[in-house]
Amino acid sequence: MATSELYLIRHGLAGTWGTYSRDEERPLTGEGQHKTRLVAQRLKDLGLQFDLILTSPLIRAQQTATILKAVGLSPQMETTPLLAPEGAIAPWLDWFEQWREGNPSPNPRKLALVGHQPNLSHWAEMLVWGTSSGSILLKKAGVIGLFLPEAGNLLSNCQIFWLTPPKLLL
Amino acid sequence: MATSELYLIRHGLAGTWGTYSRDEERPLTGEGQHKTRLVAQRLKDLGLQFDLILTSPLIRAQQTATILKAVGLSPQMETTPLLAPEGAIAPWLDWFEQWREGNPSPNPRKLALVGHQPNLSHWAEMLVWGTSSGSILLKKAGVIGLFLPEAGNLLSNCQIFWLTPPKLLL
Repeated sequence: MATSELYLIRHGLAGTWGTYSRDEERPLTGEGQHKTRLVAQRLKDLGLQFDLILTSPLIRAQQTATILKAVGLSPQMETTPLLAPEGAIAPWLDWFEQWREGNPSPNPRKLALVGHQPNLSHWAEMLVWGTSSGSILLKKAGVIGLFLPEAGNLLSNCQIFWLTPPKLLL
Repeated sequence: MATSELYLIRHGLAGTWGTYSRDEERPLTGEGQHKTRLVAQRLKDLGLQFDLILTSPLIRAQQTATILKAVGLSPQMETTPLLAPEGAIAPWLDWFEQWREGNPSPNPRKLALVGHQPNLSHWAEMLVWGTSSGSILLKKAGVIGLFLPEAGNLLSNCQIFWLTPPKLLL
C-alpha cells in the first residue's frame, strides 16, 4: 500500500486577544482571510488534493478550513474537538486508526488537519521523532507535510517532507 | 543580536551513477540545470539573500552553487571539503564559529550550504534535535531553512522554519 500524506495547517491571522470575551470566538481578520485564501489557492495550484479536512471547532480554524474547502482542496470537511487547543495527540491517533480502517484505499490517503499552535508542530515532532522540543516554527496559515507509514505505530515513524510559512509559499 | 539563518540546499539532478568513472565527476543533467535555475530564481523572487554560499567541491554541487550565485543570491561563493559527501558536522561547526567571529554583524547573518544527502538532512536534525533518524526528506534542489542561536552551542539549539522540495516551491 502507498504511503499516506498528512498536512498540518495552522489557522490564519485572527483578531487579537482581549477584543473577544472568549478565545474561541476570535475570527480571522480581513487580512487573515485574504492571506488564507491566497494560501488555499496556491495549494490548489500546486496540485494538492485532500480526502478530508478535519478541523478544530474554534471559529478561526473553521473559517480557515472553509476557505480551503471552498477552493476545491477537499470534498469533505469535518469538525472535531480533538483539534481544539486543549486536544491531545493520543485520542487523535485513535481517530486516525479508525478513519484509516473505515476508508481502505489503494491510493495514498491525504488528510489535512486545521488547528492551533503549539499543538500542530508538537504533534508533527511526536509523529516524526517521538518527542517534542518546540523546534518546528509554524506560522499562521503555514503548512507541515508528513508521510505516514501504512501500518503500525505512527509515533516516531513518520517523515517530514514539507514545512512552509505563507511568505515562502506565496 | 539577531538570529542567523542557515539554508541547506541539495545539489540539483545529476548524471546517473555508472556513466562517470568517479562519483565526484557527475555533472548536473540538462534537466537538473534547468530546474536548479528555476529554484534559484524563485528563491531570489522570494527575497532571499545570502552573505555567503559555501559549497561542496563536487561538480554537481559547484554547478548548483554557481547557478544560485548567478541569479544574485549571494556576493560570495566558497568551496570547502567540509561539505563533500564524506564531510562531518563537527569540523563544519568549527568553521562556522570562526566565520561568525570573523564576520561580526548587527544584522542576521544568512549562510547557504550546497551539498549532499544524507548529510544535509542529517546535519539539520543534529542542529535542531541533537540526534538524527533520517526523517527529513530533502529532494534534489530542495531547501531546508534553520534559525541559529547567536551564541552558544548550535547542536539541538536551532529551529526549523522551512523545508521544501522544488515541486512545492515552483
